[in-house]
Amino acid sequence: MGLLTLLTDFGDRDSYVGVMKGVILGIAPETTIVDLTHGIAPQDIAAGRFQLQSAYGYFPGGTVHMAVVDPGVGSERRSIAFATEQAFFVGPDNGLLTGVQEPIVAAVHLDRPQYWRCAEPSSTFQGRDIFAPVAAHLCKGVPIANLGTSIDPESLVRLALPLMTNLEGNQITGCIQSVDHFGNLITNLKLEPNSSKTWQIHLENNWFLIQQTYAESPVGAVMAIVGSHGFVEIAVNCGNAQERLGLKVGDRIVMNAK
Amino acid sequence: MGLLTLLTDFGDRDSYVGVMKGVILGIAPETTIVDLTHGIAPQDIAAGRFQLQSAYGYFPGGTVHMAVVDPGVGSERRSIAFATEQAFFVGPDNGLLTGVQEPIVAAVHLDRPQYWRCAEPSSTFQGRDIFAPVAAHLCKGVPIANLGTSIDPESLVRLALPLMTNLEGNQITGCIQSVDHFGNLITNLKLEPNSSKTWQIHLENNWFLIQQTYAESPVGAVMAIVGSHGFVEIAVNCGNAQERLGLKVGDRIVMNAK
Amino acid sequence: MGLLTLLTDFGDRDSYVGVMKGVILGIAPETTIVDLTHGIAPQDIAAGRFQLQSAYGYFPGGTVHMAVVDPGVGSERRSIAFATEQAFFVGPDNGLLTGVQEPIVAAVHLDRPQYWRCAEPSSTFQGRDIFAPVAAHLCKGVPIANLGTSIDPESLVRLALPLMTNLEGNQITGCIQSVDHFGNLITNLKLEPNSSKTWQIHLENNWFLIQQTYAESPVGAVMAIVGSHGFVEIAVNCGNAQERLGLKVGDRIVMNAK
Repeated sequence: MGLLTLLTDFGDRDSYVGVMKGVILGIAPETTIVDLTHGIAPQDIAAGRFQLQSAYGYFPGGTVHMAVVDPGVGSERRSIAFATEQAFFVGPDNGLLTGVQEPIVAAVHLDRPQYWRCAEPSSTFQGRDIFAPVAAHLCKGVPIANLGTSIDPESLVRLALPLMTNLEGNQITGCIQSVDHFGNLITNLKLEPNSSKTWQIHLENNWFLIQQTYAESPVGAVMAIVGSHGFVEIAVNCGNAQERLGLKVGDRIVMNAK
Repeated sequence: MGLLTLLTDFGDRDSYVGVMKGVILGIAPETTIVDLTHGIAPQDIAAGRFQLQSAYGYFPGGTVHMAVVDPGVGSERRSIAFATEQAFFVGPDNGLLTGVQEPIVAAVHLDRPQYWRCAEPSSTFQGRDIFAPVAAHLCKGVPIANLGTSIDPESLVRLALPLMTNLEGNQITGCIQSVDHFGNLITNLKLEPNSSKTWQIHLENNWFLIQQTYAESPVGAVMAIVGSHGFVEIAVNCGNAQERLGLKVGDRIVMNAK
Repeated sequence: MGLLTLLTDFGDRDSYVGVMKGVILGIAPETTIVDLTHGIAPQDIAAGRFQLQSAYGYFPGGTVHMAVVDPGVGSERRSIAFATEQAFFVGPDNGLLTGVQEPIVAAVHLDRPQYWRCAEPSSTFQGRDIFAPVAAHLCKGVPIANLGTSIDPESLVRLALPLMTNLEGNQITGCIQSVDHFGNLITNLKLEPNSSKTWQIHLENNWFLIQQTYAESPVGAVMAIVGSHGFVEIAVNCGNAQERLGLKVGDRIVMNAK
């Protein structure tokens, strides 16, 4: 029995995701499949990378994570799989998978058609014809080294993220990296663990102390909090911070030690 | 093997639901997980209550129902679990779970960190850190009494629903309690079983007899019917009653015996 | 252990789909359930037919495909199940299921209440009360002949599709049969296998050669390609062809051999 997660930008209107599950279950019928999300905006590799990076650590060891956000499908971009001590990752070599924090212990270029659905895969749907069957073979216990030619983990494409946190004494500059379903604005800012400093966020000409819970703020008030991803989030208690503040992914956020 | 349902207001854009499934399957790998819906409007406890109440009775005995619509997360509101003769329920003590009709045979306050994901749970995502692991332990067969301090079922928070049915001779006043994906307006009105009376609904200065099937009305016509929830519904055959009539949850509906 | 797929127009806001899964798992607990899609537009039988037809071939032999897009629920339309050599299909007799290409080896009218959830099924939700329990019994291995009175496969309702391909020498006329989540316009045109001809599509007073991959066109350019369904698709590389061209399902498309 294997555990496999799926993340795509395929949406929920078509049967594309169902088709990939059919291919997987045809090869590895005992697999438990979990959808991470299929609601990534079309071709938004950075958003897919963030969601995968946020989620994979909560799954048990040996889980296979397959992700497809793939604007370069059919081009020369490589199809890849890699393993860490904890998990396997399968998808296009475009930065989607390389939000993974742990060391990569093996990486392969998926160049062996005997593990694909067919020798001549679709040029537009390699999720169905290459990634799904390869992920299913991993679930069945096929060693990753069998699935393709070994490649250097250093050669994998990594995203140049738009703005990294930048320490300047007691001021840190970051950006919004995701906006969730509730309208919470998730930054890339993290607090130092066990720091004795009190941190605050600058928004609309005001400073907001970073709180512990939503409930510390009145309903409808803007607030800052360390969210469940471990990053500083800007939220509105029982409201939608994105609608309230008009901010978006990539916008610059400044955090200060008081 | 256990069966577990999930209902939240988390939407389908983020990996929050997937993360909870990862936590559950890490503890109880043989669990079958069914999504009831993650499309409850943010913080709409009453809507979540209605969907859970409408669904749980169709699942086999012993199913664990976990629900998270939780505007008070991180506040003093209790985390709870309770059991009826048929099923288990896990979630926040805010009225979401108390649409259940059957007697509660045991209820606990989830105050034992050894059944959580970690001793210091997130103040914003207790679905991941408390409810998911507790629900997984129930699926594995841990007795509910182990999971927390016993509490009086009478102490659980119950929703004051906006308008209850109100019998006045042959006239009953109710309200719309849900609008479904098709635009059907689901009231909280029920017909007396085996009544010899003929009932009708008042809408837009007309009376509509309550019919047996959509197909009795011409395509596009407004109609009233006893829907699959057992409540009187206002529908448009092959159309959308909400768009047509402009009614919404909470609006008053009058039913008359002819 | 059985494998069952679900396709409906129920959306993801209500617990209707979850309720059907509860019924199925109560009868056949070992079933693996895969959602094809629940995002079919309400009552759009042709769209449901296209998605089911596109997907079922990718599932292993013996899979049970249950589909509910059912504007005639509660009317005289029949409830049916049929088998091919490869799979089972369960749903309303309205054309939704008859996109299946393989010969039908057995078909039944679902007229035996002992295989339903209850003797008096809801007139508005036969997915719950008839189709789900019948599909579950198929998953458990009940022979299809037991589930109802045998009927002639020729008697099943078939859709008159709006426009079929029409060969006139080197010019073929077809139409758009589906628009996917990415805005790709999927026609009903197929290329002759191993043809030596070069085909092109006429759009906005231009001819577009049919390409092999998205990446052959510049980002943002309109293009034609043989998509993963095997049909000619009109796409925009990393963009949305529907928004760009303003075309919709049913619009006429002309293809020419150059």
